[in-house]
Amino acid sequence: MLGVPMKVDVVVMPKQSVLDPQGVAVRNALKDLGLDSVESVRVGKFLELEFKTLPDEAKLQEVCRDLLSNPVIEEYTIRIA
Amino acid sequence: MLGVPMKVDVVVMPKQSVLDPQGVAVRNALKDLGLDSVESVRVGKFLELEFKTLPDEAKLQEVCRDLLSNPVIEEYTIRIA
Repeated sequence: MLGVPMKVDVVVMPKQSVLDPQGVAVRNALKDLGLDSVESVRVGKFLELEFKTLPDEAKLQEVCRDLLSNPVIEEYTIRIA
Repeated sequence: MLGVPMKVDVVVMPKQSVLDPQGVAVRNALKDLGLDSVESVRVGKFLELEFKTLPDEAKLQEVCRDLLSNPVIEEYTIRIA
């Protein structure tokens, strides 16, 4: 494991039921720029985490829920790369 | 193609050579919360685009470069889902 960092990607997106004004603004801008076939855009966060060793899964879920996302309006996905 | 929207994901990240203070803040917070093995964190944007029909590839590259990212400090990746 030495010298090979573990990569974990976390994607945090607004929930489908939550209005995403930033996404709406981007959609309108894409339409104005000629991408007429765009239907919807949602904008979220992408976090690339690098670990020296594999982190504890439960701990990782905990920090995603408590620090990296707001569970009231956002949902997160963890991808171990 | 009717009723099946095309999904395109765009990931916009700060370039490796650019300082990412938000990432450093998240890394320090993760360490404080007990994830000691975290080495680095970078924070970027994740955009989920939905199209009615497959957009023109060149046009898509153009909007990613001109609208969705700042090529001076960021780089983008397009993933057709």
